[in-house]
Amino acid sequence: MEVINGHKKWGFQGNPELNASSISVRGVLTKLMANRNKDDKRPTIPLGRADPTEFPSYRTTPVAPDAVADATYSYNFNCYPPTVGIAEARRAVAEYLSKDFPYQLSPDDVYLTAGCTQAIEIVVSVLARPNANILFPRPGYPQYEARASCSKLEARHFDLIPEKGWEVDLDSVEALADENTVAMVIINPSNPCGNVFTYQHLKEIAETASRLGIFVISDEVYGHLAFGSNPFVPMGVFGSTVPVLTLGSIAKRWIVPGWRLGWIVTSDPNGIFHQSGFVECMKNFLDITTDPPTNMQGALTQILKHTKEDFYSKILTIIREAADILYDRIQEIPCLTCPHKPEGSMVAMVKLNLPLLEGIIDDVDFCMKLAKEESVIVLPGVTVGLKNCLRITFAVEHSALEDGLGRMKAFYHRHAKKK
Amino acid sequence: MEVINGHKKWGFQGNPELNASSISVRGVLTKLMANRNKDDKRPTIPLGRADPTEFPSYRTTPVAPDAVADATYSYNFNCYPPTVGIAEARRAVAEYLSKDFPYQLSPDDVYLTAGCTQAIEIVVSVLARPNANILFPRPGYPQYEARASCSKLEARHFDLIPEKGWEVDLDSVEALADENTVAMVIINPSNPCGNVFTYQHLKEIAETASRLGIFVISDEVYGHLAFGSNPFVPMGVFGSTVPVLTLGSIAKRWIVPGWRLGWIVTSDPNGIFHQSGFVECMKNFLDITTDPPTNMQGALTQILKHTKEDFYSKILTIIREAADILYDRIQEIPCLTCPHKPEGSMVAMVKLNLPLLEGIIDDVDFCMKLAKEESVIVLPGVTVGLKNCLRITFAVEHSALEDGLGRMKAFYHRHAKKK
Repeated sequence: MEVINGHKKWGFQGNPELNASSISVRGVLTKLMANRNKDDKRPTIPLGRADPTEFPSYRTTPVAPDAVADATYSYNFNCYPPTVGIAEARRAVAEYLSKDFPYQLSPDDVYLTAGCTQAIEIVVSVLARPNANILFPRPGYPQYEARASCSKLEARHFDLIPEKGWEVDLDSVEALADENTVAMVIINPSNPCGNVFTYQHLKEIAETASRLGIFVISDEVYGHLAFGSNPFVPMGVFGSTVPVLTLGSIAKRWIVPGWRLGWIVTSDPNGIFHQSGFVECMKNFLDITTDPPTNMQGALTQILKHTKEDFYSKILTIIREAADILYDRIQEIPCLTCPHKPEGSMVAMVKLNLPLLEGIIDDVDFCMKLAKEESVIVLPGVTVGLKNCLRITFAVEHSALEDGLGRMKAFYHRHAKKK
Repeated sequence: MEVINGHKKWGFQGNPELNASSISVRGVLTKLMANRNKDDKRPTIPLGRADPTEFPSYRTTPVAPDAVADATYSYNFNCYPPTVGIAEARRAVAEYLSKDFPYQLSPDDVYLTAGCTQAIEIVVSVLARPNANILFPRPGYPQYEARASCSKLEARHFDLIPEKGWEVDLDSVEALADENTVAMVIINPSNPCGNVFTYQHLKEIAETASRLGIFVISDEVYGHLAFGSNPFVPMGVFGSTVPVLTLGSIAKRWIVPGWRLGWIVTSDPNGIFHQSGFVECMKNFLDITTDPPTNMQGALTQILKHTKEDFYSKILTIIREAADILYDRIQEIPCLTCPHKPEGSMVAMVKLNLPLLEGIIDDVDFCMKLAKEESVIVLPGVTVGLKNCLRITFAVEHSALEDGLGRMKAFYHRHAKKK
């Protein structure tokens, strides 16, 4: 630190762990947005993040704002919430999830969080300890890596296999795990791949994790958004084979990502999370972390109980049709290949065939130039762990998706290598 | 890890940093609540935490729920928020705070957080680096210590001097600071002491911190809740003497602690937080932390703009009267002394004269027995850094406060040492 006129000059040195964690979807999207050409009068097509709230077709059910207004006007939800969440909302989440379970979840299995982002922060922070490691999918969701870095938890990566519909390479899981491995993460329906794991594959994952003695963290933020041949099966179904931490949220199914209401659920009928001390440690950590607002927790109870089936099916239909548009239009763009037709979530992974392009070095270069020339935002694959791929969100208005993919086709033709 | 039948047994080892941070106000209060006698039919008197929402006199202004309903029904606030907060709400906070500032804050100085709890998490995480230390007040607010422990940031403590109205012992600040000190924290109006710093004392703090080259973190969650002779002066007034991070929230002034809406403000007209790289590092960290819900951010704009002066003054009157009741009644309880009449916040520190009591070992023992015998909850001083004191919340309905202090007097007489 310098001393000037006898005064220290205010210095600041960043925390190296935080700096290492600064690759985030949000950070990359900010850079892409800033790279757009301000003179382009066309609307920006946002295929970079799964947030379709600006499009009328994706408006949430009126049950959701009614629930927020009712809870808030009751004046019963202004107090600090219990750190685990209010009792009614925990019960509502347990009932909502138990519909798809072979056993009944207890309200005590549910811990409310400020969205899945905080759920990830909590489970990673609580599992971390010196010399431990955790297994993440590649491609995956970089929030996990960022949080592991903050907690000095070593991240190891197993592959998802595009040729097998993005199933987990279980051999690589076996090869990576050792006595210091605390857990493995799966994301189902998949972000970023858009696939949905079969019952059989989830069973194999559970058996592998059980054999290795590691917990499974199942990120089901896209839970129920499955519209292909594989139905959505929650990993907690296999909770008696392996203890499962299920992460979920209303962000995607209810199209309210900004409301930040999520949960961590211990799907563990054998009580291993309790016996091992994990639950106690998590409760201690919840004592010193922020909570979702009490009035929003009050609303959650109503939202889960009163949302009608026709809202769910309307949203599912729109997303299915969007996935079809994406898959068809990608086939018309020679430099892009979609190895597996998306059947869940709101996003898909697409391979970039760089040798067909002139003057594009890699996926980041592709996305930066696409933003500049076409005002289309897509996420470079490297952000989610797979270089020279793209993660494309199809959950936008169909007309906007057609427009965006049309511009990508034009972009290809402008940059195609001359034969 | 044990191996049983060739399978590893699921083990879990807590993270030592998280375990060290498990002393929290919330954790201690849970233990006290659990120690009550279930056969006591009287209502529990909650003097342990500053959350008066259950009492009719402390109902928030109708402007607040109207703002939440309006923002939510607009359907404009369902999207992910920008990680720094939505522009309108940042502008509203800047305007609200600038009324008391000698210069105009910019919306860019404002970062919205999920309550002050998350504001503390963010500033401590961003300031932490290996071998650094930070200066906290004693007594203080244990959330700071807990977060420093999580971030492996060394906590050093300067004293607040009861005989000087709980002013900062600036000599101890000078003695503690070294070249690795990143910042000092003040809490004004004070939690847990209930005092309000004078303009002159804040100026001295700013000059001391400036001389030492350390940032000031000013926790003003109780901002404007000053009802004695010292008016509330925001530390940011001295932002050109020393760079100040102001932490605030609507929790206390609007009596909505459960709504989890707060802010971090850089009160720094010289732009040192920018030049030093602090702001960039904080923005990176915000990219990977959860946000306050977008609809609640939308509501914040309206709440700050539309709340009427008469709501503020009504709440201030109720709290002032409660502080008077506390101060008078404490004088009737020989084993308790209030060294400084509370003039701000919702809490006061009271000294416990143990030699006057029979069979009470310390403050924790006092509080546990008081909970059991009288269903009165007060916080042991050790929780906030000062052994054999109590932190008493006076922000409850006046009748409940009289009742609680009457029970404490009866408790004293039952446990008084026989002469």
